[in-house]
Amino acid sequence: MSELFSFPKVTYVGNQSLTAGDGYHYYNADEIVAGKKMSEWLKFSVAYWHTMDQCLTDPFGEGTAVRPWDNAGDGDKMAAALAKVDYMFEFLDKTGIEYFAFHDRDLAPEGKTLAETNANLDKVIDKIEQKMQETGKKVLWNTASLFTNKRFLAGGATTPFAEVFAYAAGQIKHSLDIAKRLGSESYVFWGGREGYDFLLNTDTKRELEHIAAFFKLAKDYADEIGYTGQFLIEPKPKEPTQHQYDFDVQTTIAFLKTYGLEDTFKLNLEGNHTYLAGHTYEHEVRFAREAGLLGSLDANMGDKLTGWDIDEFPNDIYEATLVMYEFLKNGGLPTGGLNFDSKPRRQSFEFEDLFYAHIAGMDTYAAGLKVAAKLIEDQVIENILKERYASFDSGIGADFEAGKVTLKDLAAYAENKTDDEINATLKSGRQEQIKATLNNYIFSVLGK
Amino acid sequence: MSELFSFPKVTYVGNQSLTAGDGYHYYNADEIVAGKKMSEWLKFSVAYWHTMDQCLTDPFGEGTAVRPWDNAGDGDKMAAALAKVDYMFEFLDKTGIEYFAFHDRDLAPEGKTLAETNANLDKVIDKIEQKMQETGKKVLWNTASLFTNKRFLAGGATTPFAEVFAYAAGQIKHSLDIAKRLGSESYVFWGGREGYDFLLNTDTKRELEHIAAFFKLAKDYADEIGYTGQFLIEPKPKEPTQHQYDFDVQTTIAFLKTYGLEDTFKLNLEGNHTYLAGHTYEHEVRFAREAGLLGSLDANMGDKLTGWDIDEFPNDIYEATLVMYEFLKNGGLPTGGLNFDSKPRRQSFEFEDLFYAHIAGMDTYAAGLKVAAKLIEDQVIENILKERYASFDSGIGADFEAGKVTLKDLAAYAENKTDDEINATLKSGRQEQIKATLNNYIFSVLGK
Amino acid sequence: MSELFSFPKVTYVGNQSLTAGDGYHYYNADEIVAGKKMSEWLKFSVAYWHTMDQCLTDPFGEGTAVRPWDNAGDGDKMAAALAKVDYMFEFLDKTGIEYFAFHDRDLAPEGKTLAETNANLDKVIDKIEQKMQETGKKVLWNTASLFTNKRFLAGGATTPFAEVFAYAAGQIKHSLDIAKRLGSESYVFWGGREGYDFLLNTDTKRELEHIAAFFKLAKDYADEIGYTGQFLIEPKPKEPTQHQYDFDVQTTIAFLKTYGLEDTFKLNLEGNHTYLAGHTYEHEVRFAREAGLLGSLDANMGDKLTGWDIDEFPNDIYEATLVMYEFLKNGGLPTGGLNFDSKPRRQSFEFEDLFYAHIAGMDTYAAGLKVAAKLIEDQVIENILKERYASFDSGIGADFEAGKVTLKDLAAYAENKTDDEINATLKSGRQEQIKATLNNYIFSVLGK
Amino acid sequence: MSELFSFPKVTYVGNQSLTAGDGYHYYNADEIVAGKKMSEWLKFSVAYWHTMDQCLTDPFGEGTAVRPWDNAGDGDKMAAALAKVDYMFEFLDKTGIEYFAFHDRDLAPEGKTLAETNANLDKVIDKIEQKMQETGKKVLWNTASLFTNKRFLAGGATTPFAEVFAYAAGQIKHSLDIAKRLGSESYVFWGGREGYDFLLNTDTKRELEHIAAFFKLAKDYADEIGYTGQFLIEPKPKEPTQHQYDFDVQTTIAFLKTYGLEDTFKLNLEGNHTYLAGHTYEHEVRFAREAGLLGSLDANMGDKLTGWDIDEFPNDIYEATLVMYEFLKNGGLPTGGLNFDSKPRRQSFEFEDLFYAHIAGMDTYAAGLKVAAKLIEDQVIENILKERYASFDSGIGADFEAGKVTLKDLAAYAENKTDDEINATLKSGRQEQIKATLNNYIFSVLGK
Repeated sequence: MSELFSFPKVTYVGNQSLTAGDGYHYYNADEIVAGKKMSEWLKFSVAYWHTMDQCLTDPFGEGTAVRPWDNAGDGDKMAAALAKVDYMFEFLDKTGIEYFAFHDRDLAPEGKTLAETNANLDKVIDKIEQKMQETGKKVLWNTASLFTNKRFLAGGATTPFAEVFAYAAGQIKHSLDIAKRLGSESYVFWGGREGYDFLLNTDTKRELEHIAAFFKLAKDYADEIGYTGQFLIEPKPKEPTQHQYDFDVQTTIAFLKTYGLEDTFKLNLEGNHTYLAGHTYEHEVRFAREAGLLGSLDANMGDKLTGWDIDEFPNDIYEATLVMYEFLKNGGLPTGGLNFDSKPRRQSFEFEDLFYAHIAGMDTYAAGLKVAAKLIEDQVIENILKERYASFDSGIGADFEAGKVTLKDLAAYAENKTDDEINATLKSGRQEQIKATLNNYIFSVLGK
Repeated sequence: MSELFSFPKVTYVGNQSLTAGDGYHYYNADEIVAGKKMSEWLKFSVAYWHTMDQCLTDPFGEGTAVRPWDNAGDGDKMAAALAKVDYMFEFLDKTGIEYFAFHDRDLAPEGKTLAETNANLDKVIDKIEQKMQETGKKVLWNTASLFTNKRFLAGGATTPFAEVFAYAAGQIKHSLDIAKRLGSESYVFWGGREGYDFLLNTDTKRELEHIAAFFKLAKDYADEIGYTGQFLIEPKPKEPTQHQYDFDVQTTIAFLKTYGLEDTFKLNLEGNHTYLAGHTYEHEVRFAREAGLLGSLDANMGDKLTGWDIDEFPNDIYEATLVMYEFLKNGGLPTGGLNFDSKPRRQSFEFEDLFYAHIAGMDTYAAGLKVAAKLIEDQVIENILKERYASFDSGIGADFEAGKVTLKDLAAYAENKTDDEINATLKSGRQEQIKATLNNYIFSVLGK
Repeated sequence: MSELFSFPKVTYVGNQSLTAGDGYHYYNADEIVAGKKMSEWLKFSVAYWHTMDQCLTDPFGEGTAVRPWDNAGDGDKMAAALAKVDYMFEFLDKTGIEYFAFHDRDLAPEGKTLAETNANLDKVIDKIEQKMQETGKKVLWNTASLFTNKRFLAGGATTPFAEVFAYAAGQIKHSLDIAKRLGSESYVFWGGREGYDFLLNTDTKRELEHIAAFFKLAKDYADEIGYTGQFLIEPKPKEPTQHQYDFDVQTTIAFLKTYGLEDTFKLNLEGNHTYLAGHTYEHEVRFAREAGLLGSLDANMGDKLTGWDIDEFPNDIYEATLVMYEFLKNGGLPTGGLNFDSKPRRQSFEFEDLFYAHIAGMDTYAAGLKVAAKLIEDQVIENILKERYASFDSGIGADFEAGKVTLKDLAAYAENKTDDEINATLKSGRQEQIKATLNNYIFSVLGK
Repeated sequence: MSELFSFPKVTYVGNQSLTAGDGYHYYNADEIVAGKKMSEWLKFSVAYWHTMDQCLTDPFGEGTAVRPWDNAGDGDKMAAALAKVDYMFEFLDKTGIEYFAFHDRDLAPEGKTLAETNANLDKVIDKIEQKMQETGKKVLWNTASLFTNKRFLAGGATTPFAEVFAYAAGQIKHSLDIAKRLGSESYVFWGGREGYDFLLNTDTKRELEHIAAFFKLAKDYADEIGYTGQFLIEPKPKEPTQHQYDFDVQTTIAFLKTYGLEDTFKLNLEGNHTYLAGHTYEHEVRFAREAGLLGSLDANMGDKLTGWDIDEFPNDIYEATLVMYEFLKNGGLPTGGLNFDSKPRRQSFEFEDLFYAHIAGMDTYAAGLKVAAKLIEDQVIENILKERYASFDSGIGADFEAGKVTLKDLAAYAENKTDDEINATLKSGRQEQIKATLNNYIFSVLGK
């Protein structure tokens, strides 16, 4: 097939130049890090909705994006949808990214009924399936948009309107059929409008019971068709709704446990969403990991001084390092990856910016992986923790951990110790030193 | 006993005047609202730490408060601690408030060992017990401060230091003994330093396992001594730590369910804490109520544009109305109440301001109760919800709720409906109209 | 002319019912408040972009609004634009609102050149002018959209691209011609993209010099054509850009003074914008008033827990009261008014919601006006301030204010006073009492 | 003089090790960067209040700090104050820091009158003066605390109480005498309580007039005694007050221009304060620089997810690089420096942490300086701007900048251009590429 657009294949160039955009400076697919190839650890994924569909509109202005496929299809929406698939695969090829992710509605125009819409979609899926076979590219995850269409104004699985609810169910059914067909590694639920705009007109409990039952029906159906990909929930605290039911990791855990869904789902975490909930990204990844629920990552960034979701491509080495630290502790993401749920800024409207942006994001996470691997190799954090919690490894601390003591035992133990004795056992947290050490690692590992 | 300070007993004056401070304008103890006396619904409580101990310091300045007991004890700390009890009971008497709440460390100075500290404390408890018998005043809840003393710099039940952990256990043991002795309706855990300042030096999972086991030891001990008050956790997202483990209602539910503690605890919710977690107070009260976990309320307010805890006395009729709506839906708070975890502003440094502040807080919640009761009497919200969710009361909606349909059934049902058919079933959320109706209720119920 | 849509003319119904939407409960056009008719004080204005054009889209979903004019024009954009004018005037008639406000681009579709676009616009202006003459309705202010079209991606007057800059100038010229023709009371500049997305690619100083010179050219042109309406800047801190140059009142004052524009402009303040800058609405109105710069108000609300602009119709009696207090202190808004830069929630998608929303907003500000007038009548705040600052009305305080003392004089005066002497002059701020008094006023003035 | 505490003199060790704390890894005093020695650019300063006085209390707990001078003075406060001076100079000596900064109240205990307090203070100043002569260490700036003592509960220069106002004036007079005597390079005003807690009890205009006049009296006095150091205002938006009058750079500019003080003051900017105002540190430094008002820097950091001032030592290479970029563009800080208005975390309570923290902060800014110098050397940003604004360097853009065109000229120029012609002149902002280039510079310049 002839080239659809002129941008050279992106290769690893290392640190020959300082100006970005001429190739990967840190992402070196075959380089061994922590015992595996970078490309095996870092299952990057292109987000169809951003990279292919996003015109870079915002609430105050029309789209700015210039894309090679802008005139594909010549006004015929289905033709355009089919043509876009070719561009997407060329983009995957040129960047060397192995995965992609999509919502059902990213791919094809809607018809007048769900049946018509499904038929449109299936034509595009046919083409995608064929291209996947030709190229070996894979679906990291797919999902269904239960938030864009007007009908979902009050939610999909939590809508107060039964007709809409049934429609949402139909959409999920078809979406799971696609997951099965394309072998999606995971299947994601992001509840964009599953929450409330106004507490006083919302029966919160009834809505939560609905969505829990809805998830069970979805799981039953996946089992029925033999789809074995991992189900994922993607938490977000607010936007578009005032409150979304999947606020953050802990809220989602509470939900899963309340409704007996903890074995059905893991989590897909997104950087920008975590700030909106008042957390750092590494915090949310840590707590998901420790709960055994770290499924996949949406690799993006926000701006902690900006109160809405900006979906910026990642460029912060601190965040990338700390997220990759948790990632390595998790043994990577067996059924997940790093999906660029990210878009270029509205002023970065040229097609080249899509490349620059993906390169920047991949280099940032590759750099973070390298630093994290070195930190683990040197057992920097592990040794800090070992020393800090040592008093629970023997004596009264160990007895407590072993379940050998009562409250009274502990009280008796403590009662006659003096303040000086107790204070002598305190150790400094050394936060300033540790952060400076982290800087040393970053500059040392990544410097020329 | 002679009068210790000159402020007249506060009585209900109604709306004779508009200038506040001359009595209760809305709180009328014997008035029947929603079938019960106001005083039976509204179990107000004085917070010892704020009303008796708070000097109105802040991180940038020394205390400003002028209190009648400033010179009590004449430099002898135990004498001062004992004298203060009399002032507190006079304050309860003059305001007509029936309950109070305290931390162990609010009451008496610390000694060199826990044993000494307990002995100091017990002397004050002796006096309090006697005054309770004389006056009929009650303890809403008590708690232990595992955050003020230096030893707790890295937490009490989540400290990395076993000696400190044992001390914390000893402190809780004694605190539960007091709860038993004084008949506290509930026992509260606020984990002021149970969280982390720095993720990289914290073994978050080990700390959470510790505190869960600690809570079980505390419960075992309560059972052993026959203390039957309700255990409560008070969520707060941050401050003093960067992240507190009991971030909000949902985080606490996740914790309780993860560690099998959901039958042991309910929640004590504080208004100002909810904003810091990104929620409204009514949101948190709603979700705690629907989870069956609404235990007690810390009646205070924050400032949604201020990023730290300010513990202002409540004065917002909107919040009070919506919180009281949830409260009434909960059937009130059988083992809890409305504790004024609130302090006058630093510039409201005079003793009279303590009275003005409590009057303002009580009037605000009394006013909120009256509006909420009228809303429920007229079934305003209930009718909105009934109409809004009607499509789940029959047909496909009801079949779904009854567990009679699969995803495929729903899909088949929806597949050939047109967009127009589906959109015709959508109903407006009427948020603007409902908020205007709420204003009408507030002004009508509370106006002269 | 026959009725275009069926909603009855909205009249004052008072407090007969509690359910909102059946008429004005507080806005009573002819009622005398503070010596003038309500309708003379409260120059309400309909925002064309929201009420006529807003489909209730958001970044995650398509529009939901159902409007009687949805099919006007039958696909012909100019015909639709012209038809919409009739609906707008019927809306003004039925609500009794006397003013409206618009951006150039709200009214008519764009052509391929500015000349074509202007021609389209002029056809709609012709019709508007005629309807104004027929009905007596007036333009509160008009403005130009230098943010919606792609060309303005990096600003209009602060764009780095001279062709765009010239276009922006041409657009303002035409917009001022319209202001002159229709007799707009004010002319507004909201710099939606006058700011930066990224500090490192922005020459902030050069951009500020450009916009200052641009404003002077605009003023020169207004003088040339004899347009004497008040020029207004509308501050907003961020969104859509990361930083907007007109961040808040003080930032705008700094800008005006730096570039010698302080006699050319006043300010148009919007409630929701103030929260995004970390301020209350009453704060910004106060500081604009005291600087002599209070020009007009965009009457809307935000949500202090939501980090983006939501443009909710006003319903908070506290905010309305405090803003109306400043408004009355300003003697009202001679060349401005209360423009509803507000939209119904996305779920309030029905046409009736537009009425309910405007009714709610008008009632809220009418109620606030009444409470503020009573506060001033009783000199509540004035007396508080008089007493609080009394020490500057005589003695050393008055000498200082009169410029009669040096630093040395003050030092000599203070040097030998004891702490006790000084502290005895401090007075409580009485915040709790004052807030409770405010509640009493609200309930008393507005209650039945 | 013998060594007072055992910590070795801190020297430059470079990148031999990765664990921080063993010396400077990036700060190399004599290394030439951008044509000058690092030590000449980076006038680091120790903050007396944090490093010497701060016990690491917080609103929820007592101090944790362990300091070698804890028992100095043996209970005699003046003896302790004098002893502490020796420790401070040893700390300066061992770190190699050349400057320090202090509030009057950091140094000596207060007496019963201002005269007594001044006398106490003068004894400590005598000793400091002598130590300065012996060691060559210098005062970067001094200031007066008009916020700690109770008397300032409603402000110092903006207090409603004339006696307090006079006291504040006396305190400033003495503080300026000290500035003159010790040769402070600048004199700082931070208005900790110059603002309001409650808008309704505050006469904001009268207070602003007071503080403006107060500043003029202070300047007159400085002139009288021949003190020629730079006067600085330090903006902060809130905390402790709800609103501080010096909210941010622009607010302070508005104030200075309103009251004719723009030639008297420059600004002292603090990182953490900028976030609380919704800005980045580099934003505030940029705008102060471009206004010709960049005086000095308080080198600290906050946490953008934390809503209060945490005064963390700097460790973010991105922020340090961008601040140092503005710093170099400003030609450094002739009368200012980099004052560590920073404290170790409460858990970093050991004395060694003070060293680790200062080392971390100095290394961070030294690293940032090196990266910024290289960016300027390569004209990275300058070339981006040159290209981006090129259309204003010739043609219609240049004519506009030269003042040669009217609004009509610009309109005529633009009127018949097509959208395609105009859009063809737009250039991508390249934000993603620039940020990736910045990463490349950081890693390359700082790597081994």
